[in-house]
Amino acid sequence: MEIFNDIKLNKKSETPLYQQLAENILHLIEQNELKPDTKLPPIRSLAESLGVNSITVVNAYKYLEAKKAVYSHVGSGTFVADPGLNDNKSVTRPLLNRQSLEDIDTKNCINFADTSVSVDLFPVDLFKNCFNTVLDRDKGDAFSYLDSDSMGYKPLRDAIAQRLEDEGIKALPERIQIISGAQQGLDIVSKAMLNTNDIVFTEKPTYYGALGAIFSRGAQAVEIPLEIDGINTEILKKLLKVYSPRFIYIMTRYQTPTGICYSPQKKRELLELAYKHNFYIIEEDNMGDFNYTNSKLVTLKALDYRNRVIYIKSFSKILMPGLRMGYMVLPKAVSQAITSAKYSSDIATSSFIQRAFELYLRSNEYGSHIRRMCSIFSEKYTLITSLTDKKLSPYFTYNKTGGGLTIWLKLRENMPDTHILCNAFAQSGVVVMPGSLFTTDDKETERHIRLSFANVTNTEINNGITIMEDECKRLYTK
Amino acid sequence: MEIFNDIKLNKKSETPLYQQLAENILHLIEQNELKPDTKLPPIRSLAESLGVNSITVVNAYKYLEAKKAVYSHVGSGTFVADPGLNDNKSVTRPLLNRQSLEDIDTKNCINFADTSVSVDLFPVDLFKNCFNTVLDRDKGDAFSYLDSDSMGYKPLRDAIAQRLEDEGIKALPERIQIISGAQQGLDIVSKAMLNTNDIVFTEKPTYYGALGAIFSRGAQAVEIPLEIDGINTEILKKLLKVYSPRFIYIMTRYQTPTGICYSPQKKRELLELAYKHNFYIIEEDNMGDFNYTNSKLVTLKALDYRNRVIYIKSFSKILMPGLRMGYMVLPKAVSQAITSAKYSSDIATSSFIQRAFELYLRSNEYGSHIRRMCSIFSEKYTLITSLTDKKLSPYFTYNKTGGGLTIWLKLRENMPDTHILCNAFAQSGVVVMPGSLFTTDDKETERHIRLSFANVTNTEINNGITIMEDECKRLYTK
Repeated sequence: MEIFNDIKLNKKSETPLYQQLAENILHLIEQNELKPDTKLPPIRSLAESLGVNSITVVNAYKYLEAKKAVYSHVGSGTFVADPGLNDNKSVTRPLLNRQSLEDIDTKNCINFADTSVSVDLFPVDLFKNCFNTVLDRDKGDAFSYLDSDSMGYKPLRDAIAQRLEDEGIKALPERIQIISGAQQGLDIVSKAMLNTNDIVFTEKPTYYGALGAIFSRGAQAVEIPLEIDGINTEILKKLLKVYSPRFIYIMTRYQTPTGICYSPQKKRELLELAYKHNFYIIEEDNMGDFNYTNSKLVTLKALDYRNRVIYIKSFSKILMPGLRMGYMVLPKAVSQAITSAKYSSDIATSSFIQRAFELYLRSNEYGSHIRRMCSIFSEKYTLITSLTDKKLSPYFTYNKTGGGLTIWLKLRENMPDTHILCNAFAQSGVVVMPGSLFTTDDKETERHIRLSFANVTNTEINNGITIMEDECKRLYTK
Repeated sequence: MEIFNDIKLNKKSETPLYQQLAENILHLIEQNELKPDTKLPPIRSLAESLGVNSITVVNAYKYLEAKKAVYSHVGSGTFVADPGLNDNKSVTRPLLNRQSLEDIDTKNCINFADTSVSVDLFPVDLFKNCFNTVLDRDKGDAFSYLDSDSMGYKPLRDAIAQRLEDEGIKALPERIQIISGAQQGLDIVSKAMLNTNDIVFTEKPTYYGALGAIFSRGAQAVEIPLEIDGINTEILKKLLKVYSPRFIYIMTRYQTPTGICYSPQKKRELLELAYKHNFYIIEEDNMGDFNYTNSKLVTLKALDYRNRVIYIKSFSKILMPGLRMGYMVLPKAVSQAITSAKYSSDIATSSFIQRAFELYLRSNEYGSHIRRMCSIFSEKYTLITSLTDKKLSPYFTYNKTGGGLTIWLKLRENMPDTHILCNAFAQSGVVVMPGSLFTTDDKETERHIRLSFANVTNTEINNGITIMEDECKRLYTK
């Protein structure tokens, strides 16, 4: 588009190129020279015409997406968002996976896209008991706070520290920071640790929704491809010769979106690199409990003998997303700065919720709940993998991870592209998550789809896979 | 101190001078060349020796305080914080007012410092009903969320919009943003609107605790003196010739710490300046409900016919601080960016708390609660002002505001300084808030003390004022 040829970037400026580019595009949007739903140029062609690296354009688009100025759509491409959309819509557009499904009636279809478990599985009654116990016991104190509460309710931090021992993580209560969900964890770490121009490494593919916090600091992301046992450490080593990242953001257990788990060797290697090159590792753990095998999956934090791992635990998948509750285990060197960032962000997480959560954690209910969830989803995992093996193997390959709530299918070479496929599935009432939502321009990732079995019945799994088989057959023989 | 003479600032750098200075000091702290509890040099002498404006040093110290690297102590001076302090202490040090009272046993004294009302006044039983109703009615849905929830639970936004009509504020539900407390409001506005080097105007004195969010963006604060009817608009006009602020942060009803209210004329003048010079006004309202007069105090937002006011409502004083609940009314032009900042900060405020809060707001209980609070605190206000008139008038002057939870006493010229006075009160078991906590080096502000009657009994008010009178007499006749 001609309009993009007028964009001038200043390579000598302190403002990173991607941000200059993003702000130029933002300006065009604000001036209405780029109208809502206009498709932005493809990454490579824009990079070429501007004479910049394509990673610059990728980061600019991601930055704009984090600002909700643009959105990516099922299939492919980045589009200008409509700021005038009425309230809910203006927020629902980009970032989170299911947001891109807004055009599809997900209520009356088989939903392999949603990764939140059914609300029927939330332990609401038990929490109701905990809430009432707290109200009767603590009365007004449940809603007061001290400034020392920024780190979190002390008895809750004690309970978490005890629980972490079972995971092999030795954490003093004063190194545990309570957060209002994993997103806030990443946000306050970014606030404490990142400034404009700082570099962050991520996995590729990764969960971009989480990166909004990083981009809000004006920092830049560099992606490192994932292998079956964790990130490619050879590429990481090469990149460490060029960049000094403040941290790397990873998920070691049932990664989003690939479901891979890090091997013991990769974990050791990664830690040694962090120690040698002085970067931190943000290990986000939202899926670790969904382990259907008999072997334990050790977190990176448990192996971190020199305190370089910031561990973020989310309860959104295993308990309930609307609880807005999680915690971090912090290395001493950064804990004060991070707690201070929490203070300036929202002072403290609701004391009422923390007190109820403490009761819940200290009861035996949490352990029983995890076992119950694993038993339910282990069964669904077995069902969906056996059906996929039986019906979809001519069209897809995938790795069995033995856990999590999703499987990550790769299209075989001779298949039509993901865009055509996902649309065909949707037309037949089956919604899946295209790989393109986890990357801006990685062709390899775009050849994937993700199936979630978090919020589908066994019958729906059966019917859904059958429909997918039928659609593949039809398209394949065309 | 010699160590400070080695600090070199680069006036040509894009990094603001105050930030360069702060980072130099931070470096000295990290290298342990400045040990915990070391007193930093006085503002003016450091400014002089570095050849910079004293506002630069003020902002550097405030920036460091926001990062909890330093703390201000009762009396005067800024000190290096101890990063090795055990958990609670490391957090309780600076920023919030009562934190500086840690050395004093506030439990066994008359506490005129605390501005949180007694927990006995929290409407806990009514909220308990609301919580249980939500759990029985919504079950798991109370803990699920959609990405569209970043703006807040729609029925709650509807209820707030209705309530705002009584305040003369016309706000569409889609311009109401739910927040987890006023601090988060300021934080996400800053995230959406501020970048390094941006200028923000504040009142002088102001509540510095709130500015941590602004400093976290690398922005700089310029203070404008308050008069009895609002900020000094003559000085504001002069400063507008030098600076282009992104916004001004003010409290129009019972300001912290002075208790002043803006006059209708000041409000109109301020709005016209905002329209002319294109800056936004952040109007924080945490005290507006504590009005003991018969006349209505109109908010700035109610008069804002060209949408330049971002109104932040806090329920921490009128309801309960630990609810972590508030809202903002946003101009359309910035609403999308701010909701997006909310999303990247913590996705959404707890849906469970929002749903219960909606029930509470829609009942008649909220109105009754406000009337009950006003009746209780109006009585205490009458008591404390009449006692102050009777016993303290030889030593202090003050303005009667007719509302709020505090009075702002100014020492008469011939009295000893605030530091000596506050210590003497404390020795006799009466804790007050010295004005020095609301400024870094303003001599005028330092000649004040603030008395809060939020969390004291009538007997304590009686005894407290009598003790203060005795101490004043003793010191005055020395």
